[in-house]
Amino acid sequence: MDSSDFLEFVSTRSSIRSYRDEPPDEQALAYILSCASTAPSMGNLESWDVVVVSDPERRAALAEAALDQPHIREAPVVLAVSANYVRAMSRYGDRGILYALCDASIACTYMMLAAHALGLASCWTGAFDDEDVRTVLELPPHIRPVCLLAIGPGEQTSGMTPRLPIEEHVHVEAW
Amino acid sequence: MDSSDFLEFVSTRSSIRSYRDEPPDEQALAYILSCASTAPSMGNLESWDVVVVSDPERRAALAEAALDQPHIREAPVVLAVSANYVRAMSRYGDRGILYALCDASIACTYMMLAAHALGLASCWTGAFDDEDVRTVLELPPHIRPVCLLAIGPGEQTSGMTPRLPIEEHVHVEAW
Repeated sequence: MDSSDFLEFVSTRSSIRSYRDEPPDEQALAYILSCASTAPSMGNLESWDVVVVSDPERRAALAEAALDQPHIREAPVVLAVSANYVRAMSRYGDRGILYALCDASIACTYMMLAAHALGLASCWTGAFDDEDVRTVLELPPHIRPVCLLAIGPGEQTSGMTPRLPIEEHVHVEAW
Repeated sequence: MDSSDFLEFVSTRSSIRSYRDEPPDEQALAYILSCASTAPSMGNLESWDVVVVSDPERRAALAEAALDQPHIREAPVVLAVSANYVRAMSRYGDRGILYALCDASIACTYMMLAAHALGLASCWTGAFDDEDVRTVLELPPHIRPVCLLAIGPGEQTSGMTPRLPIEEHVHVEAW
């Protein structure tokens, strides 16, 4: 892959909220998880976990935990990515909280881009009630849900939301 | 880019801590930042910022703030990526803290992969003293540094650190 490919690759991804509820493709899932496994992590601890949710009833319960967002119910698979606080904190103490949140976000970004490489739609969903998600997924207390990544065959609607001019983000040498 | 390309692409990246201190390539930097600009963000608020550091004295000061890690001094460019708490919290309150940390991590992952697409080495560096980094980069109080991403021409040393078996991360339907 050369550089022009990568820019085009990321520019053609957008967050999709409309899915065809087809059976999950196990091979695609395995591929997505293999890609995520190559993500870097703080101290190589890989302080992230994922719950693969495809059961319709559990997706419905997750959708309810996610402020009733219908795409969580409709997508054939939801990858619930979490920060594993205890794994990072066992080495890094309180700093481990930041590290685990980064690890989970990096791995989830890899999953999102791997899905895109397969031609699958996805939607990073951060709006949910932590405790409700914990209950639905039976997460232990030291596991913090970070993203419900909806994945599946989906309809491109309107393309990528316009972005701020990059200058809004960039500072040179200091703020 | 097809799927096999993406898996190969991410599998050939590893964290590099040995750099040739050549002048920063402005075109490469612009490309990396353009890619980052396409990253998704919570509520499309893009609650992240980046300070592009190439001045040798400031890199040295940053290296000191980063527990004296020499690669921060040696890499020609350090992209100091931060979470913009106030941008996310202005809409989402306390939940905005998580959102801004995710936004910064996603954008930084895009930068890291964009550098890789250009054949540049990089190293996600999370170990630093927040207050020292704040001082060196003159960050306002509502801006939390998340990653010092070293970027530059570098020497691949030993390849990707071995990963945990993916099964360690994956749970099906529930924990």
